[in-house]
Amino acid sequence: MPLIDETARGVFVISVTPFLPGGGVDFDSLDRVTDFYLERGATGLTILGMMGEAPKLTQGEAREISARVIARAGACPVVVGVSAPGLAAVAELSAAVMDLGAAGVMIAPPSSLRTDAQIHGYFTQAVGAAGAGVPVVLQDYPLATGVQIDAAVIGRIVEDLPQIVMLKHEDWPGLAKITALRRAEAAGRRRISILCGNGGLFLPEEMARGADGAMTGFAYPEMLAEVVARAAAGEMDRAQDIFDAYLPLVRYEQQQGAGLAVRKYVLARRGAIAHASLRSPGAPLPPEAVAEVERLIARQERRLKELG
Amino acid sequence: MPLIDETARGVFVISVTPFLPGGGVDFDSLDRVTDFYLERGATGLTILGMMGEAPKLTQGEAREISARVIARAGACPVVVGVSAPGLAAVAELSAAVMDLGAAGVMIAPPSSLRTDAQIHGYFTQAVGAAGAGVPVVLQDYPLATGVQIDAAVIGRIVEDLPQIVMLKHEDWPGLAKITALRRAEAAGRRRISILCGNGGLFLPEEMARGADGAMTGFAYPEMLAEVVARAAAGEMDRAQDIFDAYLPLVRYEQQQGAGLAVRKYVLARRGAIAHASLRSPGAPLPPEAVAEVERLIARQERRLKELG
Amino acid sequence: MPLIDETARGVFVISVTPFLPGGGVDFDSLDRVTDFYLERGATGLTILGMMGEAPKLTQGEAREISARVIARAGACPVVVGVSAPGLAAVAELSAAVMDLGAAGVMIAPPSSLRTDAQIHGYFTQAVGAAGAGVPVVLQDYPLATGVQIDAAVIGRIVEDLPQIVMLKHEDWPGLAKITALRRAEAAGRRRISILCGNGGLFLPEEMARGADGAMTGFAYPEMLAEVVARAAAGEMDRAQDIFDAYLPLVRYEQQQGAGLAVRKYVLARRGAIAHASLRSPGAPLPPEAVAEVERLIARQERRLKELG
Amino acid sequence: MPLIDETARGVFVISVTPFLPGGGVDFDSLDRVTDFYLERGATGLTILGMMGEAPKLTQGEAREISARVIARAGACPVVVGVSAPGLAAVAELSAAVMDLGAAGVMIAPPSSLRTDAQIHGYFTQAVGAAGAGVPVVLQDYPLATGVQIDAAVIGRIVEDLPQIVMLKHEDWPGLAKITALRRAEAAGRRRISILCGNGGLFLPEEMARGADGAMTGFAYPEMLAEVVARAAAGEMDRAQDIFDAYLPLVRYEQQQGAGLAVRKYVLARRGAIAHASLRSPGAPLPPEAVAEVERLIARQERRLKELG
Repeated sequence: MPLIDETARGVFVISVTPFLPGGGVDFDSLDRVTDFYLERGATGLTILGMMGEAPKLTQGEAREISARVIARAGACPVVVGVSAPGLAAVAELSAAVMDLGAAGVMIAPPSSLRTDAQIHGYFTQAVGAAGAGVPVVLQDYPLATGVQIDAAVIGRIVEDLPQIVMLKHEDWPGLAKITALRRAEAAGRRRISILCGNGGLFLPEEMARGADGAMTGFAYPEMLAEVVARAAAGEMDRAQDIFDAYLPLVRYEQQQGAGLAVRKYVLARRGAIAHASLRSPGAPLPPEAVAEVERLIARQERRLKELG
Repeated sequence: MPLIDETARGVFVISVTPFLPGGGVDFDSLDRVTDFYLERGATGLTILGMMGEAPKLTQGEAREISARVIARAGACPVVVGVSAPGLAAVAELSAAVMDLGAAGVMIAPPSSLRTDAQIHGYFTQAVGAAGAGVPVVLQDYPLATGVQIDAAVIGRIVEDLPQIVMLKHEDWPGLAKITALRRAEAAGRRRISILCGNGGLFLPEEMARGADGAMTGFAYPEMLAEVVARAAAGEMDRAQDIFDAYLPLVRYEQQQGAGLAVRKYVLARRGAIAHASLRSPGAPLPPEAVAEVERLIARQERRLKELG
Repeated sequence: MPLIDETARGVFVISVTPFLPGGGVDFDSLDRVTDFYLERGATGLTILGMMGEAPKLTQGEAREISARVIARAGACPVVVGVSAPGLAAVAELSAAVMDLGAAGVMIAPPSSLRTDAQIHGYFTQAVGAAGAGVPVVLQDYPLATGVQIDAAVIGRIVEDLPQIVMLKHEDWPGLAKITALRRAEAAGRRRISILCGNGGLFLPEEMARGADGAMTGFAYPEMLAEVVARAAAGEMDRAQDIFDAYLPLVRYEQQQGAGLAVRKYVLARRGAIAHASLRSPGAPLPPEAVAEVERLIARQERRLKELG
Repeated sequence: MPLIDETARGVFVISVTPFLPGGGVDFDSLDRVTDFYLERGATGLTILGMMGEAPKLTQGEAREISARVIARAGACPVVVGVSAPGLAAVAELSAAVMDLGAAGVMIAPPSSLRTDAQIHGYFTQAVGAAGAGVPVVLQDYPLATGVQIDAAVIGRIVEDLPQIVMLKHEDWPGLAKITALRRAEAAGRRRISILCGNGGLFLPEEMARGADGAMTGFAYPEMLAEVVARAAAGEMDRAQDIFDAYLPLVRYEQQQGAGLAVRKYVLARRGAIAHASLRSPGAPLPPEAVAEVERLIARQERRLKELG
């Protein structure tokens, strides 16, 4: 399978991990949701991220899921999250998934990091642990990790570590960071791929600032694909029209901690997975929220029809 | 001036503090923006909150601003934020602003609090510091304070401290918390007013869950007023139509840390304040962001015209 | 092997994990340091804790180390740390080490927990994941986890979860918490074993407050054993004399983050392990620190000779 | 009154703020404890620090206390803590106390700072707020502020801001930081004064690493003065003998959050202040702790007598 590199663009969907109501991994649904993402415009997939309930999996399950998705995705590149409290676990999981055919690995900084030097030092070691030649995605997600990475520090990491080929950008607010990174590249620094997260909440603006696409999840991945494609084609108004139609639900899914139950509810409703179940701990969507989601979907469908 | 109580409803706009380009408080603009809020449907005002750049003011300025806004607002109730690292400062500022005619004070927990007992203990002391009979708004804003307050703990605080008459609700996700609080009240607990924050990002859902209105800022306060009024009248679809038209900008203003520059830019553009200046430290809106905001406003105006 | 229960007392030494200079686990030294601890008065051992560099191990290594120590320790109970970001990993590791003959497992709360209800809920789930009948040690270490657990919350956990048989107490300051827990037990609550951490820095006072012993590491475990034995025998002055002689070094080892290199240096110097190496990331002791440690050891030996 | 500069050395005692049992400031005791510190070897005083209960004071009280201590201290330099959530308050308090005759101001970073650039930027602004020519002490206390400042960042701050004349060093572990700073100075960087905090817990080692003295509190300031004097004279063994005699109590006072009640208890017992009262919130020493402190003092006195 091809490896990702700094030219990656489009939409890498953060895949959910489907579970059976009893708690086991639902491998049939895993195949189905993989197909679902690819049919709706994903140019890549990312698995075992935070929204993939990765910390709730055993290592054995994590490998089995990786193998299944990579096999199903065929020529479509699959990035695997390998963040772990220690470097030995990073190394072990990275070697395993690259053997299985992953296109690269994604690493977020542990929440204990504070100073610029600590962050730079950690990624130096983590890239070493990922293995020689393995493409690495740097996940910059301060809201979840508590680690703030200055644009200049990302720059030094990019200069010193050629294996870093992509930034999963989900700093918030982070538009100025995209601009700063692209300016430094225009002034001579090696270009990397920037794919944006945060559920796509700022996707039109991020594309206009120079992002190459999205790496995030949303129950309607076709929106991400269309917005990225239109924006890349310079059709910013059409991109924003489509985005706006989905925005009420994007916003609703973006509730920290509660959003995954929303996403799985909609994916199950759309037939992409058999059950909306989260693995414990993780509550199903309460009835009030179901009603809210249904109302947003009905409005969204009307709006899309108007848009044509 | 009348005090707020548990029947408060509508929209208490979180007021910005206008500054002159040189850094001084712009008192003329303060009058103007007060009028602006009242003319666009505010039923109350809240000053010296986090979005009012309160920590950048000297105590003398804080009092002068309070006096000016309270005088200008006339019959409209003004809540004043009195959060401070120590109780002596809370007591001092609370006494001062109540003397000036404030309708109540708002208190957020200091970020060092962790356990339920610490939080309950703090509000017991803080209400004491606010002064006998002074109505107190409990500000529940975990994203900014780092303090998570369980719905059951809010319940015990409400039961034990009759001066707590209102919750400024900006937990995120927080819809389930509103439902939990209203259920406990339905089962017999004293009812309090719940006004919602977070820039209004979940306002339609919050109203449907039982909120009494909003206490937040947005450069178009008329949106907040209309959504609250329509929702209170049961016209949920119309409320949501209006909300959706403004949502792209609501979302854009909701960028933690960067949003205030956006809000002031738009308020200045609308003539509500003379200068978009933030007091140092606080950068003005960069040109890329100005272009993004202008584009969102143009689209918003078109959309509102279509809505009629 | 016998399981631990609420009558456990004495000193459970937190074992280091010895590494070869190249980074591999040094199993010969692991045997040697196990013997070393037992010969110097350990009544139990605790492995795979934070000071055992557990996060730097692969799962395979963690199991191999557990098997080796449990076999070597013979009749001496071995508690194994099984804290992990997710419950599936807790369950997997707990089942594995109990199969190998562990005497119980130790669980610290994940750093995301804040409210009393979250903490209680987590331990309910974690004890379930540990497995039916498995004795569980609750590790209360706010300085490392950021989670503050009120004495009353520990009480509710103890009442609701009979498998919790022991508290590894390292709140700081935490003397009042020991008193509160013992008072609640005197008033009727089920008694649990309390073993204290923090490198023994408050051991004499902790014993006087009602602790049953220590669960911590120090390069001179004979100090821990003697202080606990003397204190248990009511010879508080002798206990304190011995403690005071070692205190300058106890204090020096208690430097957050840097202390483990000190401990391994001294253990290597004493012949308990072959190499002072920490697994990467983890720097060896710099020459200035070596000189300081040597000076403290020389003074300590003089002082112990004077004491007789 | 003379200003502090980079040649400052000796012991700047962090002064307690004495309160009457009813909660008012006890100005008679303030005079008495000022004399007490000076008579026991203080070369300077630092007021309105965290251990001075500064956040519990009103601004009016803070100024009155500053005036009183500065007047009483005469030729002895008094540093005043002016940390505040906003720069306007820093500027206001700094101007006021420098007018009163303070020798300099001390500033700790607000807990929201993370990146190197944020920290450097903050001190640039804060030094500006302190006022032209005002000597500034940078307080580096990660355990309390949550802000970690790399030695290299301190270096850049020192290079860029000549008003920074002193570091209040209480990183923990922080011995390596002193060594790094002194090495950079040996290689040509401007030298600053380094006075150490943390209750003196590592004072002998800090002096050996190149510190100029202590800026901290302890109920027996004569220990700090003697250890610093002996260490400065090269009598390291005598310095350590004296230190060791007090160490059990130093350690006991160093309990985060609880230590101030201990310190005030002992100061009241020694007649330096009339009442051990802390201002609310702040509990008095419980009886178990009183017994522990008395026991430690009795043993300390015996030990000092043996030492001669």
